[in-house]
Amino acid sequence: MPFSVRRACLGVGLLFLAALSLPAQPAPRPFGLVIHGGAGGVTPERLGPDGEKAYREGLEKALAAGYAVLDQGGTALDAVTAAVQAMEDDPLFNAGVGATFTRAGTHELDAAIMDGRTLKAGSVAGIQHVKSPVALARLVMEKSPHVMLIGEGAEAFAQGQGVPRVPNSSFDTPRQLEELEKVRARRRQPVTKDTVGAVALDKDGNLAAATSTGGILDKLPGRVGDAPLIGAGTYADNRTCAVSCTGWGEYFIRAAVAYDVCAQMAYQGAPLARAAQASLDRALKLGGDGGLIALDGQGNLAMPFNTKGMFRAYRMGDGRKSVQMFTAP
Amino acid sequence: MPFSVRRACLGVGLLFLAALSLPAQPAPRPFGLVIHGGAGGVTPERLGPDGEKAYREGLEKALAAGYAVLDQGGTALDAVTAAVQAMEDDPLFNAGVGATFTRAGTHELDAAIMDGRTLKAGSVAGIQHVKSPVALARLVMEKSPHVMLIGEGAEAFAQGQGVPRVPNSSFDTPRQLEELEKVRARRRQPVTKDTVGAVALDKDGNLAAATSTGGILDKLPGRVGDAPLIGAGTYADNRTCAVSCTGWGEYFIRAAVAYDVCAQMAYQGAPLARAAQASLDRALKLGGDGGLIALDGQGNLAMPFNTKGMFRAYRMGDGRKSVQMFTAP
Repeated sequence: MPFSVRRACLGVGLLFLAALSLPAQPAPRPFGLVIHGGAGGVTPERLGPDGEKAYREGLEKALAAGYAVLDQGGTALDAVTAAVQAMEDDPLFNAGVGATFTRAGTHELDAAIMDGRTLKAGSVAGIQHVKSPVALARLVMEKSPHVMLIGEGAEAFAQGQGVPRVPNSSFDTPRQLEELEKVRARRRQPVTKDTVGAVALDKDGNLAAATSTGGILDKLPGRVGDAPLIGAGTYADNRTCAVSCTGWGEYFIRAAVAYDVCAQMAYQGAPLARAAQASLDRALKLGGDGGLIALDGQGNLAMPFNTKGMFRAYRMGDGRKSVQMFTAP
Repeated sequence: MPFSVRRACLGVGLLFLAALSLPAQPAPRPFGLVIHGGAGGVTPERLGPDGEKAYREGLEKALAAGYAVLDQGGTALDAVTAAVQAMEDDPLFNAGVGATFTRAGTHELDAAIMDGRTLKAGSVAGIQHVKSPVALARLVMEKSPHVMLIGEGAEAFAQGQGVPRVPNSSFDTPRQLEELEKVRARRRQPVTKDTVGAVALDKDGNLAAATSTGGILDKLPGRVGDAPLIGAGTYADNRTCAVSCTGWGEYFIRAAVAYDVCAQMAYQGAPLARAAQASLDRALKLGGDGGLIALDGQGNLAMPFNTKGMFRAYRMGDGRKSVQMFTAP
């Protein structure tokens, strides 16, 4: 073997050894966020170009708020809180400002949040004077010995925590007033159920879920849907997944949809997408319509629904990103 | 063969044929009822002989009320309603009359009911002026489009259904007032959580579950525990089982205990007793204490708890019957 060839071999060998001695590149940890802004008669015809643009911007804004938290190493809990609050503040969505009217012409807001790491949860229902129901649900989780507070008791707790009291009319929007008037004139069935929600996986591998809603348009005062009920509309468990539902809440409660997705993963070893679809189907077999978002610890996500459309979006640390509204994205 | 022997053979043969042609005796369908009157510091020392006798009588009465319905061919729904109402009316139990006081010195009652045949459910929380919360939960299930109504909205619905309004003080009992005063004087931790509940299987093979409670003593007004939450404290599905929980509700909500028992049966094929114990353990691993009752479509029953005792009783159509209070029955 000529010397030059021998030297070349030695060089390649040394390079190979050097590569072997490099610290193993850790696979990047999956993280990211999925949000929904409600399922229903979401069609290009109903929204129009301007409506489509406005909803897209609203979803983008909520997605950005939640993703920024995760990207900077924040917790899944902070990410779902930020994303849901962005939609509560947006009059387009049926949560916070822009909430539906009850039959009594008032607003009664419900929300829940759950931490997949600890299985701690907070929930509020029948809220009339707190700007961010999801933030109040989180206070219940973190600052009270309880999981669920309702009505005036929840408002009193909020005041004790220094949360400012806002007038119920601060949730009014012309759009929802028009919807109520249509229902009252019996010109249409109440269908608005555009609950908002978010599920997140942070860089530490923790999951969280949050949901917030004004409930079904023209609901009886005191009616509570699935959104604030842990196990029905909201659930998160690091060992399986995080889920937030939207739709005709009564059917979702009866089928315990959010927890059922986790149970199918835990007890059957079902992959996320199959569990999410099967749980949704189980509820819809009872009646009603709607959808859900789900995210597991490996960064798999699912967004099944049976309505004409569902406002939904995701952004993952590996670059996957999408904002969708209609059946065909 | 002599004629007499031949005749005997013919006789036996005819008898055999006659027996074969008789209609097959159907195996008697299992039916029955399991009830609980709460889990907690139930010891012979704490109750005393008189207390033990009184609780035994209370449980016997509720058991008899529910069993009579089933025995006469009534529905599981009617049976659990009757059994739970008997305990709501009994000042010994923390439901209806005899409910705990809130921190505000009032009573806020919660209840739920679920039909395992249809998965229809009704639920109320924060009730202050309706004598039988479980009956109101059933009205919500049968006479409203909703599953859950809370607070004043639920009271307004009750009035619309012709349910008489009772003063909140009608739930007062000297025993619960004494308990509240002990807590206020900081002489003891609030521990009263003697929720009542019933699960039943009727002769048509249908399951039902119901739960009713005053909630944890000294609770914040507006606090809702697991009892009225479908999937947490109450669930029934003919395909698996009926469940009613009692205990520290916050932990039961976070673990979705009632639905989890059904999920373990449905997705793992776990037998009732193992599913019931595993679901309870899952909640208690988070903290707290309590127990549950569960009954499946074959008449298997389970009554696991981790407290010093649990008021519990069952009576089945096959003659099994027991009233138990302490760890060792």
